[in-house]
Amino acid sequence: MNSLEYHEKLKGKIEVKSRSEIKNSKDLSLAYTPGVAEPCRAIAEDRSKVYDYTRKHNMVAVVTDGSAVLGLGNIGAEASLPVMEGKSVLFKEFANVDAFPIALDTQDEDEFVDNVANLAPMFGGINLEDISAPRCFRIEEKLKEKLDIPVFHDDQHGTAIVVLAGLYSALEVVEKDIEDIKVAISGAGAAGMAIVKLLKRAGVGEILVSDSTGIISSKRSNLNFAKKKIQEITNPNDISGDLEDAVRSSDTFIGVSVPNILSQDMIKSMNRDPIVFALANPDPEIMPKMARRAGAKVVATGRSDFPNQLNNVLAFPGIFRGLLNKRAYKVGYCIKLNAAKALADYINDPKPNKIIPDVLDKEAVKFVTKAVEDCVDRGEY
Amino acid sequence: MNSLEYHEKLKGKIEVKSRSEIKNSKDLSLAYTPGVAEPCRAIAEDRSKVYDYTRKHNMVAVVTDGSAVLGLGNIGAEASLPVMEGKSVLFKEFANVDAFPIALDTQDEDEFVDNVANLAPMFGGINLEDISAPRCFRIEEKLKEKLDIPVFHDDQHGTAIVVLAGLYSALEVVEKDIEDIKVAISGAGAAGMAIVKLLKRAGVGEILVSDSTGIISSKRSNLNFAKKKIQEITNPNDISGDLEDAVRSSDTFIGVSVPNILSQDMIKSMNRDPIVFALANPDPEIMPKMARRAGAKVVATGRSDFPNQLNNVLAFPGIFRGLLNKRAYKVGYCIKLNAAKALADYINDPKPNKIIPDVLDKEAVKFVTKAVEDCVDRGEY
Repeated sequence: MNSLEYHEKLKGKIEVKSRSEIKNSKDLSLAYTPGVAEPCRAIAEDRSKVYDYTRKHNMVAVVTDGSAVLGLGNIGAEASLPVMEGKSVLFKEFANVDAFPIALDTQDEDEFVDNVANLAPMFGGINLEDISAPRCFRIEEKLKEKLDIPVFHDDQHGTAIVVLAGLYSALEVVEKDIEDIKVAISGAGAAGMAIVKLLKRAGVGEILVSDSTGIISSKRSNLNFAKKKIQEITNPNDISGDLEDAVRSSDTFIGVSVPNILSQDMIKSMNRDPIVFALANPDPEIMPKMARRAGAKVVATGRSDFPNQLNNVLAFPGIFRGLLNKRAYKVGYCIKLNAAKALADYINDPKPNKIIPDVLDKEAVKFVTKAVEDCVDRGEY
Repeated sequence: MNSLEYHEKLKGKIEVKSRSEIKNSKDLSLAYTPGVAEPCRAIAEDRSKVYDYTRKHNMVAVVTDGSAVLGLGNIGAEASLPVMEGKSVLFKEFANVDAFPIALDTQDEDEFVDNVANLAPMFGGINLEDISAPRCFRIEEKLKEKLDIPVFHDDQHGTAIVVLAGLYSALEVVEKDIEDIKVAISGAGAAGMAIVKLLKRAGVGEILVSDSTGIISSKRSNLNFAKKKIQEITNPNDISGDLEDAVRSSDTFIGVSVPNILSQDMIKSMNRDPIVFALANPDPEIMPKMARRAGAKVVATGRSDFPNQLNNVLAFPGIFRGLLNKRAYKVGYCIKLNAAKALADYINDPKPNKIIPDVLDKEAVKFVTKAVEDCVDRGEY
């Protein structure tokens, strides 16, 4: 069965389930009128009661504007829905989080922000999805300011968490310290930005980021506000050049960009035991076999048909499970770092071909959940 | 168990159910990446395919701004959610419609309209709920103009359909023709307006509407746009006066207003075999026992503890079931009149205490569904 047939046969990957049985007029009077007036009144008096009397406590909105869907680009709200439904399925299957797909038919930044903020009453968290950079950065920031529930752009932070988890394990394999390594990142979009920020927090000293125009440095003109931010916190020696220059003498390559741009020669120019995360989907920056032949010690991709699949599904279900369990009002670096560490720790004895849990391993989700809860319990986010 | 305990124990009356099982990487690749790209691409090429590959075909948004919740008034978005969840439960239980509660945290009319319009991609229909009059009229009109899916304000049209159904049966009981009767309506809000319009379409000649200031006539000053509209299509003799004057010599009283405003003397002033629909909730315009003692032949209320419960749940599940089955893009008078007729016809031999199906009778829902489908099949709406 191909995916079109699969979708046509399912007639929707999610549905709304009633948790109330309406068998008689007593049921009706409890779940609906006149009984329902009581919880309404209670919430009107104390807004926090909405967590007790409705599904808000377990409900996440998976929100997109359809502007950057998978590798398909700006295909719009309707066309994004199969992805949003798929994401909702994963939330439910992996962490029993109720997630509802919201594809908003606007790509105006402020309108989108206001729309999502207005939607918040029913939801205990907002998962932003497939929104193009650099708009996604401002949208997330603005929503964080407006809302008292956690807002999490998964393409940024989910990716960054899983990458850092893989990096922790890979560094154990090659016996290097995170403080000592130099990392070359290809791609300065949503994922690239979040990876930079999280790796900095994790202690990586030197990061070089390349986009299609080359290494991001102070000499570059016309950097958008997001790339300007990257420039400020990376490239300490302010090097100019192209990807080849960035990768030379680095310890780790992280690709969140386009297929086939990492050559074997570039890998050969890296420091000993290169770590190569080639995460472009579906075609990676270099095929794993070629990377290993060129000397890469640890290779990971985003694909399920190779070892070391670095996929967001390892992070977002547990992240939101923990946030909802604790009614956390935000997600910060404590949570992100702790979640990455939990995923890495889950692999007791990492090997070149086993740096990260299997994406279908639901036990790993519990580790991530626990990591989130621990931060919130300490009053950190 | 009281309603607060019931709600606290349930922890939400709805949840999101996954229709996909994710057991292995094949499942993951079909429901999510990379397979999900196929339906996305197909919808991007032909937007109508969103009905085939997502749950849109069965999904209704139950949308409110919390401005007129039950009899509780403007209690806001959060506090309205128990009602919206309850409504979603009824949609599912009675008609297998997936309905999701959306309580928008804005009471700005245009912002609300834009917000709902932007939400539409995931939904096959919009059920507006508990929005204060006269704002609800403009909101519904604007949304109808913007959207190519049906928009239905249930407090208006659901109520009107059920009232007309009850009236058809009651008129059979008292052997009067709808064209010949005079109807006095108490209440000029959302329900009152919709009842006026639907009764006009059904052939009622003379309708008088009273609000708290008296009969709506051309002599009234400061009528809002909605009441002005009522004035234009009712009160053919342009009578002034109060509710007492409106009810005198009428055949039918319909109350969608406040408790205890219809006296026994007023009923005594009506034409032979008065029909009294006292629908204010939870306390009706007159208690049924008193109404019957004063001579009312047929009495109905909104309550489940008296005979003849006129409740919207008799209409909205079947209405949307039919609309979704036929992918109808709007709801017009053919559908509303036909649905009312179907509900009346379902009662083969109406009696004073049996003019309408029981609210828990799921067979009646099928009659309404069929009535909607028949209109759409004829190309009428």
